[in-house]
Parts: sequence; C-alpha cells; structure tokens
Amino acid sequence: MTITSPAAPSAESPSTAPFAVADLSLAEAGRHQIRLAENEMPGLMALREEFGPTQPLAGARIAGSLHMTVQTAVLIETLVALGAQVRWASCNIFSTQDEAAAAIAVGPNGTADAPAGVPVFAWKGETLTEYWWATSRIFDWSAEAAEAGGDWTGPNLILDDGGDATLLVHKGVEFEAAGSVPAAAEGDSEEYRVILDVLRRSLSESDDRWTRISRDLLGVTEETTTGVHRLYELHRDGDLLFPAINVNDSVTKSKFDNKYGIRHSLPDGLNRATDVLIGGKVALVAGYGDVGKGAAEALRGQGARVIVTEVDPICALQAAMDGYQVARLESVVGDVDIFVSGTGNKSVITTEHMLAMKHLAIVANVGHFDNEIDMDGLAHVDGAERVEIKPQVHEWRFPTGRSILVLSEGRLMNLGNATGHPSFVMSNSFTNQVLAQIELYTRREEYPIGVYVLPKHLDEKVARLHLDALGVELTELTPEQAAYIGVPTDGPFKVDHYRY
Amino acid sequence: MTITSPAAPSAESPSTAPFAVADLSLAEAGRHQIRLAENEMPGLMALREEFGPTQPLAGARIAGSLHMTVQTAVLIETLVALGAQVRWASCNIFSTQDEAAAAIAVGPNGTADAPAGVPVFAWKGETLTEYWWATSRIFDWSAEAAEAGGDWTGPNLILDDGGDATLLVHKGVEFEAAGSVPAAAEGDSEEYRVILDVLRRSLSESDDRWTRISRDLLGVTEETTTGVHRLYELHRDGDLLFPAINVNDSVTKSKFDNKYGIRHSLPDGLNRATDVLIGGKVALVAGYGDVGKGAAEALRGQGARVIVTEVDPICALQAAMDGYQVARLESVVGDVDIFVSGTGNKSVITTEHMLAMKHLAIVANVGHFDNEIDMDGLAHVDGAERVEIKPQVHEWRFPTGRSILVLSEGRLMNLGNATGHPSFVMSNSFTNQVLAQIELYTRREEYPIGVYVLPKHLDEKVARLHLDALGVELTELTPEQAAYIGVPTDGPFKVDHYRY
Amino acid sequence: MTITSPAAPSAESPSTAPFAVADLSLAEAGRHQIRLAENEMPGLMALREEFGPTQPLAGARIAGSLHMTVQTAVLIETLVALGAQVRWASCNIFSTQDEAAAAIAVGPNGTADAPAGVPVFAWKGETLTEYWWATSRIFDWSAEAAEAGGDWTGPNLILDDGGDATLLVHKGVEFEAAGSVPAAAEGDSEEYRVILDVLRRSLSESDDRWTRISRDLLGVTEETTTGVHRLYELHRDGDLLFPAINVNDSVTKSKFDNKYGIRHSLPDGLNRATDVLIGGKVALVAGYGDVGKGAAEALRGQGARVIVTEVDPICALQAAMDGYQVARLESVVGDVDIFVSGTGNKSVITTEHMLAMKHLAIVANVGHFDNEIDMDGLAHVDGAERVEIKPQVHEWRFPTGRSILVLSEGRLMNLGNATGHPSFVMSNSFTNQVLAQIELYTRREEYPIGVYVLPKHLDEKVARLHLDALGVELTELTPEQAAYIGVPTDGPFKVDHYRY
Amino acid sequence: MTITSPAAPSAESPSTAPFAVADLSLAEAGRHQIRLAENEMPGLMALREEFGPTQPLAGARIAGSLHMTVQTAVLIETLVALGAQVRWASCNIFSTQDEAAAAIAVGPNGTADAPAGVPVFAWKGETLTEYWWATSRIFDWSAEAAEAGGDWTGPNLILDDGGDATLLVHKGVEFEAAGSVPAAAEGDSEEYRVILDVLRRSLSESDDRWTRISRDLLGVTEETTTGVHRLYELHRDGDLLFPAINVNDSVTKSKFDNKYGIRHSLPDGLNRATDVLIGGKVALVAGYGDVGKGAAEALRGQGARVIVTEVDPICALQAAMDGYQVARLESVVGDVDIFVSGTGNKSVITTEHMLAMKHLAIVANVGHFDNEIDMDGLAHVDGAERVEIKPQVHEWRFPTGRSILVLSEGRLMNLGNATGHPSFVMSNSFTNQVLAQIELYTRREEYPIGVYVLPKHLDEKVARLHLDALGVELTELTPEQAAYIGVPTDGPFKVDHYRY
Repeated sequence: MTITSPAAPSAESPSTAPFAVADLSLAEAGRHQIRLAENEMPGLMALREEFGPTQPLAGARIAGSLHMTVQTAVLIETLVALGAQVRWASCNIFSTQDEAAAAIAVGPNGTADAPAGVPVFAWKGETLTEYWWATSRIFDWSAEAAEAGGDWTGPNLILDDGGDATLLVHKGVEFEAAGSVPAAAEGDSEEYRVILDVLRRSLSESDDRWTRISRDLLGVTEETTTGVHRLYELHRDGDLLFPAINVNDSVTKSKFDNKYGIRHSLPDGLNRATDVLIGGKVALVAGYGDVGKGAAEALRGQGARVIVTEVDPICALQAAMDGYQVARLESVVGDVDIFVSGTGNKSVITTEHMLAMKHLAIVANVGHFDNEIDMDGLAHVDGAERVEIKPQVHEWRFPTGRSILVLSEGRLMNLGNATGHPSFVMSNSFTNQVLAQIELYTRREEYPIGVYVLPKHLDEKVARLHLDALGVELTELTPEQAAYIGVPTDGPFKVDHYRY
Repeated sequence: MTITSPAAPSAESPSTAPFAVADLSLAEAGRHQIRLAENEMPGLMALREEFGPTQPLAGARIAGSLHMTVQTAVLIETLVALGAQVRWASCNIFSTQDEAAAAIAVGPNGTADAPAGVPVFAWKGETLTEYWWATSRIFDWSAEAAEAGGDWTGPNLILDDGGDATLLVHKGVEFEAAGSVPAAAEGDSEEYRVILDVLRRSLSESDDRWTRISRDLLGVTEETTTGVHRLYELHRDGDLLFPAINVNDSVTKSKFDNKYGIRHSLPDGLNRATDVLIGGKVALVAGYGDVGKGAAEALRGQGARVIVTEVDPICALQAAMDGYQVARLESVVGDVDIFVSGTGNKSVITTEHMLAMKHLAIVANVGHFDNEIDMDGLAHVDGAERVEIKPQVHEWRFPTGRSILVLSEGRLMNLGNATGHPSFVMSNSFTNQVLAQIELYTRREEYPIGVYVLPKHLDEKVARLHLDALGVELTELTPEQAAYIGVPTDGPFKVDHYRY
Repeated sequence: MTITSPAAPSAESPSTAPFAVADLSLAEAGRHQIRLAENEMPGLMALREEFGPTQPLAGARIAGSLHMTVQTAVLIETLVALGAQVRWASCNIFSTQDEAAAAIAVGPNGTADAPAGVPVFAWKGETLTEYWWATSRIFDWSAEAAEAGGDWTGPNLILDDGGDATLLVHKGVEFEAAGSVPAAAEGDSEEYRVILDVLRRSLSESDDRWTRISRDLLGVTEETTTGVHRLYELHRDGDLLFPAINVNDSVTKSKFDNKYGIRHSLPDGLNRATDVLIGGKVALVAGYGDVGKGAAEALRGQGARVIVTEVDPICALQAAMDGYQVARLESVVGDVDIFVSGTGNKSVITTEHMLAMKHLAIVANVGHFDNEIDMDGLAHVDGAERVEIKPQVHEWRFPTGRSILVLSEGRLMNLGNATGHPSFVMSNSFTNQVLAQIELYTRREEYPIGVYVLPKHLDEKVARLHLDALGVELTELTPEQAAYIGVPTDGPFKVDHYRY
Repeated sequence: MTITSPAAPSAESPSTAPFAVADLSLAEAGRHQIRLAENEMPGLMALREEFGPTQPLAGARIAGSLHMTVQTAVLIETLVALGAQVRWASCNIFSTQDEAAAAIAVGPNGTADAPAGVPVFAWKGETLTEYWWATSRIFDWSAEAAEAGGDWTGPNLILDDGGDATLLVHKGVEFEAAGSVPAAAEGDSEEYRVILDVLRRSLSESDDRWTRISRDLLGVTEETTTGVHRLYELHRDGDLLFPAINVNDSVTKSKFDNKYGIRHSLPDGLNRATDVLIGGKVALVAGYGDVGKGAAEALRGQGARVIVTEVDPICALQAAMDGYQVARLESVVGDVDIFVSGTGNKSVITTEHMLAMKHLAIVANVGHFDNEIDMDGLAHVDGAERVEIKPQVHEWRFPTGRSILVLSEGRLMNLGNATGHPSFVMSNSFTNQVLAQIELYTRREEYPIGVYVLPKHLDEKVARLHLDALGVELTELTPEQAAYIGVPTDGPFKVDHYRY
C-alpha cells in the first residue's frame, strides 16, 4: 500500500491507492479519538472480549460501505478483532473524517511506512466519480486472494449503509447477464450515469466479474430504512441475489438511533449553526415518529414550546397525550421560530411555507433527504438571495424583506451542522451489525435468500452489552417467574410484535 | 323486567331478575355521570353519529362481560344506538358502579316502572356464585327470541374482558360433548368449582344449550392481555369455537390504556389512599413496559425520584436513556418510599423485600394480579399485624417495629384506591371494541376461526375519532407525498410491525 | 372538661365546652391518622427530639387559630411537647377534621372520661356565630390561671393563620379604649356584625378584658399572605399592639407551601372532583407566581398542554422560558379544557369568560378567595342553572346549550375537592411556626413591636430538619470554603435578598 | 484613527491605536453576525426605537469594559443610538471576537479608510500588559475633548463587567492621594504588578489624572457578582468614589443569565468538547443555585440522571423536591460520568475526587473561577500526564490507569467550549445596563454615592421588552384589580423581596 496523499485517487486516474496519509499526525489524531470513542462504544468492546478468543469471523471477507467516521473505525477494528478481513469505502461523499480513515489505514500498530491497517477508500469531499470508484474497490480482493492463495476475487459478506454496495453487485450481475451496459436514459440522474460508467468499464474488462462476486456472497447486513426498503423490493420481485439481514428494525437500532440520537444531535446542530437561545422559542416538529419524538423531547428539554405536525392520527394522538400542540403547518407558520422536519417524506416544508415564516426563522431537516424541504422551489423564488453566513448556514433573503436561515442546505443538519449520532448510539447500531455479520457467516444454512430481522435474543443482547457502562443493574427472573409468563429466564422476554 | 332491589339475585335464588332499582335516584345519578362521561368519550359519540343512520349492528345480539361502570354505560348505549340488542354482566365482582347499572337498566327514556334499557346482571360486591350466575344470564336470550319470533336462544356476538364469557361457552360445549360435567379436582380453585356447578345445572336442564349457542356465535372481541393469551392458546390447540378479534393489541388500546391510563390513575390512587406528598420521595417502579413507562412519568411529573427495576435489557436501556436509575430491588429497598409494581409477573415484591422496607413505605400494584406482591407470604409473617387505616389501605406492622402500607390488598390500586382508567382512555379501548364488533358482524366471511388484530386502518380510525376533542389538527398527505412513501393518502400509514 | 357532643356549643348557648367526643372511636381514628402524619412531618418530630429535653416553651400559653386538621394535631402536640400550654380554634368554619379535633381533645393518653389533651374549640361546619365564639374562647385562660395560681387571664402568645385571633384582640382593645362597640354600619359584612356582637358582649362583662390580654402578649406568629398584609398595615399605621413574626415569607414556607403543595393537590383535586383525563387536555393557569408554577408543572407532568396568563412581565417571561404559551385568557378561552386560577387577585375568570368556554370546561381556583372567579356574576346569568353533580362539583348550564363545571363553588379546590396540602408540606410551614414561637418566647427582648421575618438561619434549619426523611446528604463547607465566600461553615449561606 | 493591524498595540509601544482592521472582510463578517444578533436582542432594539428620538444619552461619555463580542457590539451601537459617545475595552484577555471588534471599529457606515465607529481597544489573546493598557485607554478622552472643546479628559460614566475599570480609577485616585505608587509586595499577583506599572507610569505623567477623571464620573453600572461584591465592600468601607448601580441583581439579569443561559450553554459546551451522548449518563451538578438549576434541567432534558450536591439546606430541599438525588460528592464519585461545578466556591472538585472518578469522566466548570476545580492540585499529581485532545479539551492520565477529561482547563466551559450566553439572554442583561446608564445620567440627583439595584419597574420593563419576540401576550390589570392588590395597573407588581 503506497502511503501518499488522501487526494491522490481522482477521476482521471481512479485506479490509484486507497486512503493514504502523507504524514502520521492525522492518523495519530484519529487514534486519540478512536480511543475515546471506544469508551463510549461498550457494545463493540464487549464483543471483542466475548468473541476475540473464538474468532467467529475468521475467513470472513467483509466489504464495508458506511460513513468512514471515528465510530466506524471502532466497528472496523472490532470486525478485525473477531477474525475478519475488511475493505472499506464511505457511503457518502462528505461524511468521511479523514483522521479516522488515516488511523484505520495505518492501523493501531502500523506506521506511515508500514501501514498495518485496513484498506480504506474514502476521504472527505469525494466527487461522484471518485465515490463509485471507491465503492467498486471494496469488491476487489485480488491482492488478498493472491496472498492467501484463494480462488476468489471478492468479499463473502457486505456490510451496507444505504445499499450502494448491494446495488453495484445487483446491477453488475444484471448487465453481465444482458451482455451490455445500457446507455444512460434521458431522465437518469448524474449519479446513475456514473454507475453505468463504472459497470461499463468493468464489463469491458471482465464479462463475469460481478457474477462471480455475487456467487461468493453469503449475504449483506443493512442498517438504513432506505436500504432495507430496496432489499424488500428486490426480494418481492425475485431479484435478490443473496440473503440480507435488516439491522435497521432491531429495537436497539431504530428506537435508539432515531429517538435518542436525534434528541442529542438536533440541539447540538442548532447551537453550532446559530447560537440562538432555544428556550422560550416556538419550535415546530414535523412528524412524530421516533425521530420526531426525540426532537420534540430535546426542544422541550431546552425550554422551547413545541408544536407537532402529523399525518398519522395515532402518532398525532400520542403527541397530544405527551402535551404538545398538534397543528397544521399552515395554521402556525407565522408563530414559529424553529422548524424541524423529521418525516421521511418530501415537500414537508414548501416554498409557500418559507415565504410566510417569521424573519430569520430557522429551517432544519433531521428526517431524510433534502427534499423534505423544498430546496428546489426555494432556489427559484423570484428575487430571493442566498447569503452564506458560514458553511452549512445560509440566509435566504426574500423580496418580502424577511429572511430565513436554512441549515445544511436542507440536508440532514445533525450531520451537516453537528457531528451525527454520538458514539454510544452508534455502538448500538454497530453491535447489531457485527452480530448480523456473525449470524450470516456462522449460521449461513439458516438464512436462505430472503430479508431477515435479527432474532429478538440478539436484539436483547445488544441492549445487554450497553447496560454496565450506564451503571444499570438488571434484575433476573426466577425460574418460577419465567415459567409464569412463559419465557426463558434469560429471554427473549417479549412477543415479536411488542412495541416497546 | 321487574324493578326491585339490586341485591335481589342471590345464590339461593339465582334465577331472579337482572340489575334492578328500588327507586330512581340511583339511576338519575348514573344518568348525570353518563352525560358527563359522553363528553370525554368522543370516539364512541362519533361512532353514534357516523353509524347511527345505517344501523350496522341491526340484528346483532351482543352478550357483554365487562366492568359495569359509567364508561361501559356509554359503550352499551353506543352499541344500542348502532342497532344491537345487548345483555350485560360485569367481569369483576367488585367493579360495578351501581348507579351506572341502574341508569343502563332504566334506559335514557325509561322509568322505574317501565324500564327501557338493557338487561344488566351486575352489582357491586357479588359473590362468586352470583357472578357466574350473572355471566350465564347474558347467554339466555329466550325472552328476546320469543318477542322476535327468532329460532335462536343465545347471542351472536360476545364482547369480552378477561375471557370469562368465552370460557363459559367453551367449557359448556366441552362438557356437553363429554356428556357430563366432571367433579371438581383437588387443586381446583373455588371459582372453578362454581363454574362447574353452573354448567352441571345447565347440563341437567339441556344437553346441547351451549353447543347451540356456540353455533350461532359469529365471534368474540376481547380486550385484555390475559383473555387474548387464552384465545391464542385455544386456537393453537385447535379448540377455538369461533373467530376472535384481539382488541388488546390495537395501538390505541395497549399504548393508551396502559401508558396514559396508568399515568393518570397511579398518582390519583396514591393520593386518595395516603395523601402523602409524592414530591421529593424515592419511588420504585418495577417493570418498564407501557404500564411502567406511564407510572414513572407520572411520579417524575410530581417531583419524585424514580428508580426502575427491569428484567428485559431493552426496556432497561430505555429506562436509562429516559434518565431513570435502573437497579435491582434488593440494592435500593431501604431507600424507597413508594413501591409500584407494574410487571404482569408474580412475586415481584417479596416478603423479604417488605420486611426490609423503610417504616411506612407504600406498596402499590398497578400490574396485573395481586400475586405481583407476595400477599400470601405477608399474611404468614410471624408476628405481623394488619391494621385497616381505611378501606383498601392497610398498615402491616412487623415485629421489627416498622410498618408498611399496602394498598388495595395488593390488587390493582388504580381500581381499588382510585377510579380506574378515565373515560377518555376507555373511549379509545371501547371504540376499538365497537369497531371490532362491527367487523365480525358485517364482514363475517373475512374472519374464519382464528385470532385477529384489528386492521391498522381501524386502529388509525380510533385515534382519528379522538383528535377533535383535543383540538388536534391533522395534516393531510398530498397525493404526491402519499405516492412517495407508498401509502394511501388517508392511510394506513405504517407497516404492521411499526412500534410507535 | 365535659366530653359531650361536638355540636354542643351553639349560638344560643355559646359558653359551653370545647370540642368534645361522644365516643372514643372518632378520637381513635384521628390518633391513627396522627401517627401516620407524624412520619410525614419530620421537621416537627425533630423539634420534639431537639427541644423536648429543654422545654423552651415552658410557661408559654399559646392561643392557636388555625385549621384543626390532622397535621395541626401534630403541630399542637409538638408545642405541648416543648412545654407550652395550648388552647385551639380553627380559622375556617369548614376545615376542621373532627377526628383530629377529637384525638387532640382526648390526648394521646387520655380517655373520653378523662381527657388529657388540649381544649379545642372547633368542629366541621360551624356557623359564623359559633366560629367567633370559638375564637374568643382561646383567649379565656381563667381555668388555667386558677389552677396555676396565675395572675393572668389570657395567653402570652398567638399562633395565627389569617389573622382572626389578632384581629379580635386589636378590635377589643380599640373598643375598650373607646368605651363602646359601635353599631354595625350599612356596608358591614355579616361576619363583622358577628364580631361586633362578640365584643359588645365582652365589653358588657369587662371594660378591660382585651386590654389586659394584649398587655400579656409577647407576640403573634402569622403564616398567611393576607394575615401578614394586615400586620404590616397595622404597624405602618402605628396600631400594632405586639410584635409579629411573618412566617409566611420564610422560603421554606412560601416556596414549599405554594409551589410544591399546589403541584400535589391541584391534580388531586381535579381527579377527585371529575375523574377527567388530564393528559392531552389544554389547561390554562392564570398567574405564574409560586402557585402557578406548581400548577403548571403538575399539569404538564400529567401530559396536559399548559397556557399561562400573566400581568407581570417578569413572570410572563419566566413562563415563556419554561416552555409555556403565554396568552390573554380572551385569546384562547374557547380552546381550554381546564381553567386554573392562582393569582390572588379578583375577577380573573369573569362571567363573560365562562359563557365563552367549551362545553363542560372545568373551572378551578387554587389562588385565594372565591372572587378570583366571578361566582357572583355567574349566579346572575340569565337562564343559567346550577346542578350539583356531587358535593363541591357543580354543573352550570347556560342558555347557550353549553355547561361548565365549577369546583368548590369557586373557593380553593385543593381544600374543597382534595385534602389540602400534604403533611410534608405542612411540616415545613409548621416547623417555621414553632421556631417563631420559640423566638418570641425565649428572645423576646430582641423583638420590639414590629413585623419580622424569621432569621435566615432558622429558615435554613427548617429545611435541614426535612432532609433526612428524603435521604438527602448535605455537603459541608470546609472552613477554607466558608471563608472564601464569607459565610459561616454552618450558614446562613445566602444574602437576605437571595431569590432561590 | 489609523486602521492598521489588530496586533499593533504592544507592551513595547502601548500607546498606539485601538483595534484596527487591515482589511474589511473581518468587519464585514462581524457586520453579518451583528445583524443576526439584533434579531435575538429585542430589548436593545426596542430601546433604540423608544429612546432614539429623544437621545437621553446625548452628552454621555461612556467607558465600557466588557467582553467585546457580537452581542456587545449590539449593546455599543444601542448606546450610540441613544446619543452616547463610547470607548471600549474587553474585560477578558481571551473573550474578544475580532470580527465584532472590527465591525464596531469600522461602524455600520464606515470604511477601512474612513472608520466611523467606536474606538475599541480589544483583540483576542491579549497579554496582561496589553489588557491593562487597553483598559487605561478607555479613560483617555483627550481627542474627543479637543474636538468638542470640552474641559474634561475622561468619561462621565463607566459600564463595567467585573470591576476592572472601576478598580483602575479607585487605585489611581488612591495612589495620587498618596503621591506615589507602592512597589509590588511579595505575594502580589502578576496581574496586580501590571496594574501598578500602569499607574506608576500615569503618576509620572500627571499627579491628578485619575482624581480629575473620578470627579467627572456620574457613576458605574456593574453586572457581575464579583464586581458588585467589590462595590458593596468599597461602599461599606467609605471608599466608593461615585454611585454604582448593581445590574447583577435585577431579576432579568440574575435569573435569566444564570438559569436560562447555563441551561443553553452547558450541553452546548459538552457537545462541542466531547460529542459524548448525555442521555443515560449519570451527571453530577455541584450547587443548586440558579446556575445549578439551569444545569440540572438541561442535563435531565437530555436524558441524563442528575445528582446534586449542596451545602445550603434550602437549595438541597429544592433539589429533592424537583426530583433529583442529593448526595455528597464522595458518596457517588465512582458512579458519575459528567461532573459539572456551578457553585461560585473553590475546591468543589478536589484532586482526591478526580483520582476516584470513572475512566474518562468529564469535568466541567460553569460556576466561577477555575479554582472550583483544584487544577493546581491536579497539576501536581505524581505521574499524571496531560494530553491535549483538542483545544480546551485535555485528558489527564493518572498512574491508576484511568483518565479524566477536563474542559477549558477548569475555567468556564460555557465560554471556553461553547460560545457563552446566547444573544437573547445577553439582551436581558444589556437592556438592564442601558437602562442603568440612562438612570445615572438623567436622574443623577437621585443617586448619591452608594450601590443601588435598578428599581423594580425598570426590571419589569426589561422583561416587557422581550415578550413580543416570543409571542407572549401580556394580560392587563383592570383598575379594580390593581386597586384590589394595591399596585398600579402597569406595575411594579411585586414587593421588593419577592423571590420569583
């Protein structure tokens, strides 16, 4: 592995090395942060202790596509500690923390000259071409195969966040079967054109590369709503090529990541972006799912008056029972100081809404894509002017004389203006990921092609591994009590449809 | 229907009339309360408005077995308003509110001499014999059959709370098939002996009464965890005789009844029982399911410091994330002023625990049966003395010189020391019941024998019917938004496993 | 002391005995409750332990005028335990708990035939004539004087709640100086006429009775806002006859009694009165002083959405900072389910407001007098009808077709519908009272005529005596720390104007 | 005014120009931020509107010594808008925001070549010598005097934060009276030596400079606890040279700044410093005054379990009543994840405590000086190693193998790790400052030498000016209501000792 600059790979010469460090200070800074993060990721550290001796992932070759952050570094090193070989790319062009990538590339015991870490294909601020080049590189295990004398060319497991790695394999197989990669159609996005280019080049080099890769794959573990949605669609249509574990719907992922993660990072992002006092303000939270519940709790906890908007009458009733006003956005738009969108739907905050807001109202999205807020419409408002206050904070000045502040250009502000979910939350999600990888690798016969959620006893295990760090004492059922409610003394304790 | 005294039916002459009123003042008092309750039960009132004109329950003969309270009165009159004929018994020997029973028996337009209401077989403080006599009477529709020239003898629907009515039919059919009712076995409870007596008498009068009743039954709707559990067992064993709708697991039942109902009635019961300041006290909540979540929130809302005990690591982690100390009861027993059990398990608070408590610690159960607290063990503590402070509040004096206060003799204190769930909560549960009855009656072909939860769109409908009363404005999806997330514009909005 | 019936003293024969018990069961019931209350009144019990041996109140003759409740019983027995002789009347015609009065009259070791308690002139439901007769009787210490061979005829201390006992002395002295009691003037209240009658009769019996009593008085301790207000006015006008300690403005009285007492008893009263679910409702709290702060916190803690009204911009800003909507009552009157008045002002909720409310809106006062709500205007609404739902709960039906529910006829509903402040709160107030009595009695030379608040070190002592019961560990300043902030190591810790 | 570099003034040539900008981009960035801050400082903006036309500060020459931040820029421009001339220095060597200083120096309509703003002597990272040079420069009004033909040399008002400007005058006068500046004594701090140097040079130039300045001073307005404390001491000792208004004890300063300011900035600082999830953690708050109350509320609002330590039994009881565990630090030190000190005392967190903490426990001070945490002791722990994680975040590694994280080197972390109080909070404090300046200037005859708090009607006015921005509707008393409680209809509404 050549250790050069992180900017080395480029569209023009995209076949160069993975993430590389010009000097070690970046890697050292990353190593500090990894060490602190380990203290906040007790689930992963407990897995190292429990499974380190037995090496359940020995022989596993994991292609990872997930934000290359400090927390992910702890995940990667946990996979390695359990015996796996790993190659990694980010799943987002902006989300890589270069110091984390550097530290992982160098490894805990490596040096700049003799890196002993994991090949990482990720740096902050990739182009789309670079991004898909990086993603394709996590499937190229020829060096490892050569070294091990293996007859394979790719990974045997995918660890996915958003489904891009999975998509690449499926599209690759599809086009290899067709014998050609189609030309881009008129409505195709820029990104899809890049994907077609990557696969066209691949097909020109090999007519069965992805097909062979696909055959070796024992499965994928996926942790996003979007990625899981695609997997269910693929399976419904009979197109899924390998088993998939839906990590997203583990209670310890969905409830914790969404509710407690947002409760933490929403006010953090608001503060870093604006320094505006939240107390006393009127805040509107669009959507009262787990994200909205966490957002509303955080804002109330800072002394804001929270108004909720909802389309689902059950969630609306929950919001009312929790003491929030529930209103249509139109009814209250002129009273609100802070707008927070957390729905997963589009056009939740429209241009019309934005034009009717108070002067310097803040517009923030913690839901999903940037289309929750009509950024496109905003860009086309006659006479509107966009002024950058600082990176990720823009004032939009309207001809009405009023302005609004839009955070992170309408994208997820807990990532753009804050630092995303804290390590402890990610420890829950990632412990699910590791357990899912172990499931697929060690109990592969129990997972024919399909989409699975983790069994409840593993979901409970994830929780269990995070209790000591919080000083939680767990009570144990007596055998008599367990028999009385008809469960094993050590769980699982609930029926599958239990709502928590 | 003869209008005499509510105490008239007795073990000695159990075939006498249903609930009856000696004078009208009781019924009038009940009518006042019903009128106030209607204002708090918007779901039921909305159903009257929506379905009154089309009478979807015309022809339905409903046998109801559910606490005969003011709220149930509003339920009964809703069923009648939708066209049903109804006969009613309570599902608990203590829970009848006599004024509600009287008002229902007389009916909104009846008089003591010419009652125009519903036959009600329920009064406060029944014996077990009286209770099962009353339950059997809701299956005797001979008078109605005679009047209508019908060829049936029983109901065509059961509305159940706890499963006693359903049990009676199943046992009746079983013994009729066997040709005899067995003698009570040694370990049989007193209550089961009473049931055997009832069915023995029935069999001596008719060898196919319950079999014929069973054949006419389109199904049962059941709203308790216990009752639902029995139904699933019956179905699993192939013994279920008719379809059943599990109302208990509607979100608008389980989440609202358990969480928001307990949040209301726990402090209410503590206050009425003890008048002890909750603020500043240390309170322990055993169990952090929906009941425990509601209990903990209520106690914190009054300024108590709350400690949670849990066996399920996921719920334990939730409690920690919500800011509560999670400990084993043994670790903190001497620090706690108020113990609240809400687990649904047995022996949660043991005799040993109680002997170690602070002087005059309060012990309260909002979980399930009185065996959550080891009342039996308590009764056998050497030298312990039980002093009644007032009804449902007992001081147990220990030889240690310390005492504890046990509420409602270890039974549900939100019923025993307070007045149970408030009307608005029951409106949610009962609106589910009515919709379930309509489902079974009008769409019977879609419900072959089995146990069903209400379809999500009806669960959402229940919520929807309660929004106006709280001033909630619901947002509507645009067709584009609905398409974007792949749901109809008017719902259902969530996948079945969504956890709320 | 003759032990007869509590109803024995009457307007016709007002010179009969104090509270008396026909049989002992009432006293025994009261004794049970006193024993439980002692556990919740750690401040008073600690005073017994600290001061019992030294008897600082030996020789003190205390005339008490304060609600004769179970909590007051613990206060009285504390005064006795510190050496005082006591005579007692209630300060409200309705507030006496007869079982507490009976238990106090009998005394812990007395019997019905040989009562060994304190002369108590109080029973539930006195007439005004009876009330003022009872108040006058606590000044008649002739029996005690005779027994002790004392040359006095009255008490040497007053313990007052509302200032009635103090008023009687001042008016008595005034009229004795004038030589006659004036006839009632046209606008005089019925109650003032009764007072004039009492004093006219007194003057006819002795021309210097009150003057002599006044001379012996070392002072009064007063615990209400109203009573304290009168004392400051008397002193300002040069009319105050003896020193007064303002117990009301101790932090451990005003903050605790108002904020934490109301937080407890407001929802308690709402529940007992109406059983209406508070969760999800819109509640309006008029006034955001300590009472309003406690009320708002309680309602939010039960899941209500709280709107505050305020006239003071500082308190209004506090409410906003605490996350509440602050609005004028007129702006939101039609949205509110529960109205709570806690201002201490009059006409806060007007007839116009009430006519505009939602059907069955609840109107409750926890502020001061019943004129916070315009009950008089309500009684004069054309066509309005008042229906008693149950005692202290009235439906007012308006010609509009809507009704409202008025609790406790507009008087303090935490007393009328609930049981007033819980023992722990009263323990704070009463510990202040006892310390104030000790101050006046043992350090009389430091209190020339004037109105005083308790020195801060005693206020802190009151708090200190309540910590152990709550498991609070207090930190101690090191001498270096104390010197650094310029306070003694054991306090007082704050400047006098500190706001807590 | 020469516009050169901000670093121009130095110890060697300390007589050079005030803050100066090399290019305008810094000033432009500051201007953007000032504009946004104005929206969050409605009190100051309202003063401009109310008093702009009448120019009450025309003729006022204000020497300001207060952190030169964006918020202070809005304050300065408000003073100017009311007619004042202003010279400004920071009151802290680190707290200047250079872009704010630049914008103020240039002025809203100035240019780099033709600055039209206020002379500002402040930049981020001054030395002590530079700091006191800058402070002395705000007293040099010779240029202004020359331009106006005035016979004065100094300001006629001081606006102070911490008392440094006031100290300089008092010391200057003292030494001029003595005729010499003493040599530094052995224990004198480095800072005091710098002050002596400044005054020694002054005395060598003029023997009555400070005496003449002092004579012209109408007074000082001071907003810190420490500064106010010094003023009371000076006055007690008969040394105060001019009247002082204690702005610190306005309710709208102390309660808002301390409670709501800390509620905002404590979690902000924790997040920026560590990104550690607060939810589920155990947090200890030392001190339950206004700062502690805000801190505890913020941490609970993020889902932490909060333990409070207190020395004052009243505040301890409040903490218990608010539902917090109250313990001695020693009792719980090993369970706590986040330590927050907010006492105003020293040695609250000792070296012994720190050595006993959990691995990577966080130590943060929001109280007062850095001696709340024994930083000195920490530096002397044998074998301890200090590792900078990032600026203001240090890991201290102990020989025990455990580490702790110390924020802002023990100084105020809401300043060091976050951005201090948000604009809205400062708007309250600064509106008090402006009103106090107007009082001293326009009603000087009512303020003989002494220390005063602002009259309550002005405190209420400050609150009032912040209500509209929060959408608060204030209720107005009717004349009848005002008379009933004995206050004017437009306030003041409370007695002086009211605690809010």
